[in-house]
Amino acid sequence: MNKIKAAIVGYGNIGQFVLDALREAPDFEIAGVVRRSVANIPAELAAYKVVTNIDELGAVDVAILCTPSRECEKYAKEYLAKGINTVDSFDIHSLIPQLRRDLDDVAKANGKVAVISAGWDPGSDSVVRALMQAAAPKGITYTNFGPGMSMGHTVCVKSKPGVKNALSMTIPLGTGIHRRMVYVELEEGARLEDVAAAVKQDPYFASDETHVMAVKSVDEVKDMGHGVNMVRKGVSGITQNQRFEFNMSINNPALTAQILVSAARAAMRQAPGAYTMIEIPVINFLAGDRDELIAHLV
Amino acid sequence: MNKIKAAIVGYGNIGQFVLDALREAPDFEIAGVVRRSVANIPAELAAYKVVTNIDELGAVDVAILCTPSRECEKYAKEYLAKGINTVDSFDIHSLIPQLRRDLDDVAKANGKVAVISAGWDPGSDSVVRALMQAAAPKGITYTNFGPGMSMGHTVCVKSKPGVKNALSMTIPLGTGIHRRMVYVELEEGARLEDVAAAVKQDPYFASDETHVMAVKSVDEVKDMGHGVNMVRKGVSGITQNQRFEFNMSINNPALTAQILVSAARAAMRQAPGAYTMIEIPVINFLAGDRDELIAHLV
Repeated sequence: MNKIKAAIVGYGNIGQFVLDALREAPDFEIAGVVRRSVANIPAELAAYKVVTNIDELGAVDVAILCTPSRECEKYAKEYLAKGINTVDSFDIHSLIPQLRRDLDDVAKANGKVAVISAGWDPGSDSVVRALMQAAAPKGITYTNFGPGMSMGHTVCVKSKPGVKNALSMTIPLGTGIHRRMVYVELEEGARLEDVAAAVKQDPYFASDETHVMAVKSVDEVKDMGHGVNMVRKGVSGITQNQRFEFNMSINNPALTAQILVSAARAAMRQAPGAYTMIEIPVINFLAGDRDELIAHLV
Repeated sequence: MNKIKAAIVGYGNIGQFVLDALREAPDFEIAGVVRRSVANIPAELAAYKVVTNIDELGAVDVAILCTPSRECEKYAKEYLAKGINTVDSFDIHSLIPQLRRDLDDVAKANGKVAVISAGWDPGSDSVVRALMQAAAPKGITYTNFGPGMSMGHTVCVKSKPGVKNALSMTIPLGTGIHRRMVYVELEEGARLEDVAAAVKQDPYFASDETHVMAVKSVDEVKDMGHGVNMVRKGVSGITQNQRFEFNMSINNPALTAQILVSAARAAMRQAPGAYTMIEIPVINFLAGDRDELIAHLV
């Protein structure tokens, strides 16, 4: 069997978990890691090529983009033009349709595939949301996040004057309403009430119930667990009160990384173009013989 | 917009709910109903063509097979050969791969599409099982059914001597283990202990905890609610203990019918061949503008 040659682009939190997932996948080999610098290479990468330019890796089938969302488009366009499929977990919901259209043009022009927003939300949650709508076309789906750390909200708190380190936890209150529990390490002389006021005024927090607390060490209260509770009560035909629920309790970067790797596999099986996960048959994300998967899973 | 012309084939429990779902769907029109006889037409069908041969309906895009599973293959082959797409909710799990291969040949030979096993299990549950495996490739998924009526087990009990009417309820005990609660209306002179012994010896029941009780009226204890609880604890990359759960509490024939109608829509969007639901992008089951669905659901 020809294994799929995957490059890891960016080696932060997600990139490290992608390395784990690729090592465990039976159908992948690791072409190498692309980083901004090749100084200070971590021990676990000793066996792999680490480069600053993907061209140095030789043949690459698919690049797994583990960069911040804002950089996904640039890398995807560059790699697609080089004839390399791309996958990302781009998570700015409002910009997904535009990214999809832009990458669709580039992917088709180069006969390649881009799978975008392939994390858990957007990503696997999106597939469940679409499926619930197919099962009960009328109704409302609520996506409740947490308890877990929100990256975006944490970065926002860190930007406030007087904050040395911060953690913003998302607590689900049901019907898509969330409480924000914010833990801050204060700089010397900073006052908690000033920081709390600045946080609560920020658009990131203004519409949610927000509590700001000082802690001695943010690192001591941080974990990477996260979760989701998605519920739909809807109508199948004219039958009301059909109820569906999807829950998960997961390590956040580990799940994102696993879905990226599954999506990298799917990228090898699609016609040229850009796809979100709901546009790809679920079986295409899975390793193994297609007939056996059908016999086992259907 | 050209609406999809759908024929309902078989007008039992499922067929009646398919009529409801088609009436509610914005993109379908009802070509008519195919029944074994056109005598005793129910009032709600007065506005529709009811025929014994699908040829009498004129142009039909897709036939929704609401017949017993054992008859699906015969009808699907016949209709595909006539140039009509087909969908069914064929639910004999062990025979799905063979049905798929057989119908794939016929569908491709006629440039048409067959969507098979498009109910909730097999069907939407299969999509969730496949997605959970993509998110955590190692691990075990348990599918727990009920509480709800099992059609197959009920038919089995009805076939026993001394049984006038019966209901077999499936009760989930976790880890895919089920209890069978069997309610029987006895014929005059029949003894409960004889019926119970016959039921418990049957292969349908032999490996499950089974309780058989006499009731005055089976109709008075029957409801069409059903449910599922699907759980997976698995590994993403090398991160253990990732937990996923899908629950639903639904009217059984209403959900089956809705998914059949959603699958009939998908049949219009696939290349020729036979497909199970995990082989079809979830977005293809949904009505509406594709870009709007992506913006709303991803």
